[in-house]
Amino acid sequence: MDTLIRRIEETGNPIVAGLDPMLEYIPEHLKEEAFARLGNTLEAAAAAVLEYNEALIDALADIVPAVKPQSAYYERFGWQGFRALAETIRYAKSKGMFVITDAKRNDIGSTMSAYAAAHLGSVDVNGTAIVPFGADALTVNAYLGSDCVKPCLETGKDIFVLCKTSNPSSGELQDLPLNGVALYAAMGDWCEKWGADSIGDYGYSNVGAVVGATYPAQLARLRERLPHTFFLVPGYGAQGGSAADIAGAFDKQGRGAIVNSSRAILCAWKTANTSPEDFALAARAEALAMGEALRAIKN
Amino acid sequence: MDTLIRRIEETGNPIVAGLDPMLEYIPEHLKEEAFARLGNTLEAAAAAVLEYNEALIDALADIVPAVKPQSAYYERFGWQGFRALAETIRYAKSKGMFVITDAKRNDIGSTMSAYAAAHLGSVDVNGTAIVPFGADALTVNAYLGSDCVKPCLETGKDIFVLCKTSNPSSGELQDLPLNGVALYAAMGDWCEKWGADSIGDYGYSNVGAVVGATYPAQLARLRERLPHTFFLVPGYGAQGGSAADIAGAFDKQGRGAIVNSSRAILCAWKTANTSPEDFALAARAEALAMGEALRAIKN
Repeated sequence: MDTLIRRIEETGNPIVAGLDPMLEYIPEHLKEEAFARLGNTLEAAAAAVLEYNEALIDALADIVPAVKPQSAYYERFGWQGFRALAETIRYAKSKGMFVITDAKRNDIGSTMSAYAAAHLGSVDVNGTAIVPFGADALTVNAYLGSDCVKPCLETGKDIFVLCKTSNPSSGELQDLPLNGVALYAAMGDWCEKWGADSIGDYGYSNVGAVVGATYPAQLARLRERLPHTFFLVPGYGAQGGSAADIAGAFDKQGRGAIVNSSRAILCAWKTANTSPEDFALAARAEALAMGEALRAIKN
Repeated sequence: MDTLIRRIEETGNPIVAGLDPMLEYIPEHLKEEAFARLGNTLEAAAAAVLEYNEALIDALADIVPAVKPQSAYYERFGWQGFRALAETIRYAKSKGMFVITDAKRNDIGSTMSAYAAAHLGSVDVNGTAIVPFGADALTVNAYLGSDCVKPCLETGKDIFVLCKTSNPSSGELQDLPLNGVALYAAMGDWCEKWGADSIGDYGYSNVGAVVGATYPAQLARLRERLPHTFFLVPGYGAQGGSAADIAGAFDKQGRGAIVNSSRAILCAWKTANTSPEDFALAARAEALAMGEALRAIKN
């Protein structure tokens, strides 16, 4: 997790910009050009998404340490969308950003090795090593246990394991009581175990956890319980989590978490008094404001 | 689940062929042609995978009701591999097969809607509805609860929720005790609830469950506990599950489950006394033998 934490220290902003490109988030002029050129096709949708993402990355790369493309919003546009995901990752990395692919992958060991190779590592094609996506980190659902985690760690990259997710129904399973501790806390304890051999310069391991801003009490309790587990915190902004709600995510040094914002950054051009052409500038202004709000609660 | 069950009745074989195309499973002559034409590229790997899959589908379509492509083995070859997944699904459906995309997707509601549209439904691109993948069913990891399930059911298609998975570490979380019932059984109870409004002609709902052949006692207990939940049973063959191990998966009418076989079918040409050119015939012979073994334990 050292690379990510160093980027956060350099920028001063513990923010990850969620790249969840719904077509309605993309200004008309970008879409119209793509549809005129390529018709009403998945290829056109993917082209508009990529152009939008690249402009956002240009506007954010010096102030935001990381981006988090959400795989579902690319798969939605078929293999053409998946190509836009690969190109978005490559572009963000070329601008020095840390890339977390939010794909919540999970499977048995041999199959999980294929996911790890796809998203974090490389594959061998007739003796040639090729990097299919090449993200720096992947979100993982560990309902299947260690078999699901180890192949990712073998790549040397980072993962974020779902513990307490931000959605309304997260408690149906995750809050179930197991001998006095909730399932999400048991999952957190596993994160500490899985990460024990990869603790870095800042005291955090390669195994992070996803803990939602929408459950602030659980977030604070997990921060105390899991001293070596770095948190990826979704649910800020549009989903209802406030800056105050995430105060408990940080450790005494003000580290230990990165907070995701998707809609607020992506759609800043819609809410501010902004022309659609300035969508990337509006995203930058929103990210700067969010950074200030987070610094205020950390102090 | 009626469409799948009807296909099983027609063929007499409760078998799904897992299309998990590792390059080492594919006969040399198919790969050599692809590498000669396209170089050592993801495109070449994906082309070999597609040609292999199409030949298997041709050999299996009249005796095996369903195929289950495992998304990881396509993502591994980048967007080019994902294109081979889309083309494999289209080809299998054109031959009348039921397609289960094994992708174990999961996310919060709005994002899960994007996965459901991608894999089971259609997306709107500037007023045109396009089907990106178009499978008949999707495997789902429901650690996030109902939010993860409902968007899939809204498509009218089927899902299989992970309950007790076939891998060695599945018990780390899934066997944890919750007031006298294991987590996997609690997940099974949720499947009954989620499916309650979609029970079809054979008494099974649109919400199935994944229960591994490698845990026969749990498999039999879940069959009794979950009368409306159809089972997708992995772990037969290469993972260690025998025909006897899955006897408990079926109901009194001999229905209630479909058993996956991947490696045994895909690599039949390696183990039998077969020339690599006859890989599809060997797959067919293996599927017929598996069908016989399953019918024997059901009687």
